[in-house]
Amino acid sequence: MTTARKGTVYLVGAGPGDPELLTLKAADLLATADVVLHDDLVPQAILDRAGTQTRVVSVGKRCGSRRITQEQIHALMIMEARRGSSVVRLKSGDPLIFGRAGEELDALEKAEIPCEIVSGVTSMFAAAAAARKSLTDRRSASKVILTTAHHASNSSGTDRPSFWRGPLPNDATLGIYMPGRDLRALAWDMLQGGMPPELPCVVMSQVSLPGEDRRTTTLGGLGDVVPGPAPLLVLAGWPLADRPEASFPEFAQTEFAQTAARME
Amino acid sequence: MTTARKGTVYLVGAGPGDPELLTLKAADLLATADVVLHDDLVPQAILDRAGTQTRVVSVGKRCGSRRITQEQIHALMIMEARRGSSVVRLKSGDPLIFGRAGEELDALEKAEIPCEIVSGVTSMFAAAAAARKSLTDRRSASKVILTTAHHASNSSGTDRPSFWRGPLPNDATLGIYMPGRDLRALAWDMLQGGMPPELPCVVMSQVSLPGEDRRTTTLGGLGDVVPGPAPLLVLAGWPLADRPEASFPEFAQTEFAQTAARME
Repeated sequence: MTTARKGTVYLVGAGPGDPELLTLKAADLLATADVVLHDDLVPQAILDRAGTQTRVVSVGKRCGSRRITQEQIHALMIMEARRGSSVVRLKSGDPLIFGRAGEELDALEKAEIPCEIVSGVTSMFAAAAAARKSLTDRRSASKVILTTAHHASNSSGTDRPSFWRGPLPNDATLGIYMPGRDLRALAWDMLQGGMPPELPCVVMSQVSLPGEDRRTTTLGGLGDVVPGPAPLLVLAGWPLADRPEASFPEFAQTEFAQTAARME
Repeated sequence: MTTARKGTVYLVGAGPGDPELLTLKAADLLATADVVLHDDLVPQAILDRAGTQTRVVSVGKRCGSRRITQEQIHALMIMEARRGSSVVRLKSGDPLIFGRAGEELDALEKAEIPCEIVSGVTSMFAAAAAARKSLTDRRSASKVILTTAHHASNSSGTDRPSFWRGPLPNDATLGIYMPGRDLRALAWDMLQGGMPPELPCVVMSQVSLPGEDRRTTTLGGLGDVVPGPAPLLVLAGWPLADRPEASFPEFAQTEFAQTAARME
């Protein structure tokens, strides 16, 4: 049993949404913290696991009319820790994936606040579990690329509209967080990257939550999918095929593979 | 509280090794299953959480002198489920990442055995947590590539010695499972892929376990690292720098970025 320490900030992954997918440590910290600062995406069923003494505060940036900046979140964490509270900074999924944890860690370090990171189940893995498909497959995919439909702001010094440059590896499964509601631009980027229209795709809505919805399609059909309610995830890759072993070799020598080969 | 159902196989992620990083659901299933079939990498402290009535069976392929094939694991799961046992197939990390879950799911489906997948914390995320670094960073990395130092067996129809073809994206964090003990070949592949020698790298040994060991280096120094005991993980990327914001732009216009630009 872990007990939240006074004056410490815990960056905690809440997992994909199902409270049963919290880690034992996350559940203990939630139950014993003085303050929980949580993002919008953390569902009420998880917040309900906070202790009766715990103050539960939303710092979600999309929360109603209230606007909170990243800097204000930093200031709040630091202030609470300095007055001696045990603080859980609760993020959906794993805290180190697309959660601006780097900036929060920098701020805490500068302020010399003790901090611990508690990993969580990322929603992409829960999406694959719901689709009952492996993300990697010895027969067709030896890597997983986790990305967003957006891009790092200063990664090349220029504005890049696409989430990937050049041919995508043909033995990767792609997991795309925050794909947006219009999937046409994403499908276009992927086709431009050399992925074939036959590539199996899954669009997941509200993974692991009661409203979970899954659309199975191909890259050719991805742009036409009208997704369920947010949060959304898109998976694309050969392991998602009904018969990964059978389906991959048909395409291995197609234009896609040739595009990849031109890179060498 | 989840109770393991008779005649069902649960593909369960055990997380990186620390029992506190089990999910609530995994802990419940372990405590209530009739049989647990586990890989080598699952530590005793987690197996100790199995119920007193649970048979705990190692099906690790590297376990002592005994040799068990993947097909024998399939047969064992199916036999146990058919005789009415509740079966937990326990894999380290998340079950759908580099765990041959695709083959196990196919076998269970063919045998018409009910199956449920329970996601876990992947060791790569715990490695980043131990290093206190985000895997993504709005300022320097918009994607994470999870891979192994090996490659999918039929991904191109030819034998490929390298884990990646062509230039690696310059805004990705690389997480390499099973890098092997000699890191020179891996470092060579990454340099060949256009990653600069200044790129921050971390070699993690036994992440989240009592013997956890971390070596911080750069890609230029990676080949000289003598890693701690297995299991090993390698992380490489700008978010691992001490000051990601400051360090990235210096290299954005280097040879590495130019290599990437030639792809366009």
